[in-house]
Amino acid sequence: MSSTKTAGNTTATTQFLQANGHSYAYRRFGSGSGLPLLFLQHFTGTLDNWDPAVTDPLASGREVILFDNAGVGRSSGDVPETIAGMAEHSTAFLDGLGIKTCDVVGYSLGGMVALQMVQDRPSIFRRMVLVGTAPRGGEDIMHLEKPSLAKRIQDPTNQGYDVLRKIFFTSSPASQAAGETFVRRISQRKDDRDPPSGPKVASAQMAAFREWDKPKGERFAELRAIHHPTLVVNGVHDEMIPVSNSYRLSENLTNAVLLTYPDAGHGSLFQYPESFTRHATAFLSSDSESAVF
Amino acid sequence: MSSTKTAGNTTATTQFLQANGHSYAYRRFGSGSGLPLLFLQHFTGTLDNWDPAVTDPLASGREVILFDNAGVGRSSGDVPETIAGMAEHSTAFLDGLGIKTCDVVGYSLGGMVALQMVQDRPSIFRRMVLVGTAPRGGEDIMHLEKPSLAKRIQDPTNQGYDVLRKIFFTSSPASQAAGETFVRRISQRKDDRDPPSGPKVASAQMAAFREWDKPKGERFAELRAIHHPTLVVNGVHDEMIPVSNSYRLSENLTNAVLLTYPDAGHGSLFQYPESFTRHATAFLSSDSESAVF
Repeated sequence: MSSTKTAGNTTATTQFLQANGHSYAYRRFGSGSGLPLLFLQHFTGTLDNWDPAVTDPLASGREVILFDNAGVGRSSGDVPETIAGMAEHSTAFLDGLGIKTCDVVGYSLGGMVALQMVQDRPSIFRRMVLVGTAPRGGEDIMHLEKPSLAKRIQDPTNQGYDVLRKIFFTSSPASQAAGETFVRRISQRKDDRDPPSGPKVASAQMAAFREWDKPKGERFAELRAIHHPTLVVNGVHDEMIPVSNSYRLSENLTNAVLLTYPDAGHGSLFQYPESFTRHATAFLSSDSESAVF
Repeated sequence: MSSTKTAGNTTATTQFLQANGHSYAYRRFGSGSGLPLLFLQHFTGTLDNWDPAVTDPLASGREVILFDNAGVGRSSGDVPETIAGMAEHSTAFLDGLGIKTCDVVGYSLGGMVALQMVQDRPSIFRRMVLVGTAPRGGEDIMHLEKPSLAKRIQDPTNQGYDVLRKIFFTSSPASQAAGETFVRRISQRKDDRDPPSGPKVASAQMAAFREWDKPKGERFAELRAIHHPTLVVNGVHDEMIPVSNSYRLSENLTNAVLLTYPDAGHGSLFQYPESFTRHATAFLSSDSESAVF
């Protein structure tokens, strides 16, 4: 349970926590008076998909904890086929670290996991930042087979991280340029990297999206029982998880501020890391019971 | 054209500009290196409906200019029955002051006027803050006759500014308490006040809303030609101009950040003046070509 206090995500050593019958890969860095900040990752993303321009500024003021869910990166076990299963692993991981309450950045798939965790155990989070994500019963969640996305994902000229640049950013020159610098930043780390996720991770996580599609009881009713201060963030042109899902979150959560970014897609936090971290820092630094900052 | 540099909206002297064959009532206060900031007012609102908790913090850093459109408060003439007519007066007023380019806060009706002005003369604004407003062809704009609003507007126990507290704020205790302090703030000014607007103002402005309902050509196409950095703000429970209109603005304007507030209605800027002015200040202080701040 040692903590690498000065490093960022380019250099922090990957650690392994034995808990819940699993070995969970994680990185922990930064320091300050704030509560620890757990990052929950997107579809197929590993520790190495966290942009240091997002994680590192937030780590000045609090400990940042990045984590591979079961079966992802170097964490053991199988990838659950439900968000609930992923939420159980994430909570067991925090229990294993001895963290009773923390803040969270839940991005895309990770935002759904955060929502499930806080529903199952409200005390687990104090404040939540939910980026490019969707409530249970949301709209058009991660249909990578739709033509607009499929053509970019299947384009053989897009190799490796180029796919992320094409699907996380819009087609504008400014957004594509931001995507290039994002790819450069997450490529900086040379050693102690996670293996990229394969088709087994992808298909289990995709099954979890399909299960999350289905409302349980009255649509969005579970959101109205969540009173945690929440900052909801999205790009207005997100084709993977449309911004309408962020509208439903901020309308139905009782205590949520919404921030949307122009000319941005699913990767809005990576496109505007200075703005995102400035707003997230102001939000996370507040002791108010209100999300308004 | 003298300027009351140190006062806020509780004490600034009302001035009168002769221009365009009209006498326009206005107040001008504050100073700093920023461009002047024009405030365009809501349905039936006068100079005295501007909350000093919103205008005064913004006046430290720039001159703030509040203005009664034709036929409102102590400005001469008839209230135009179209947004375009109101936009012509506002532009003539700025021309009369010798202001070629300024920033703008357009609230509700005033946001529509700002959109029309920038369409007619793009150089008139550098940055725009649009609060609780709607694009041409928007949804459910100012239907005060709908039962949810009518019962509060017509309740004889709601006298004077109590109506504003009931329709600008939500029914939650926190929002109603914020409404009370808002009413106290706009009641502080004792002298040199505008007369309240009567039915003649209301009916002409209502006609302008009904004309604004109708798209001209492809819906929202005119927004995609506006590239000015814009901050769009709304309460998620706005019953007078629903938040969906702010979604359409931020999706179709090419360069707009959207900020929505929880547990807030049409008067979100008056409910959270500290947050609103902090964000608006950061936005207006930016020299970037991007709205992102």
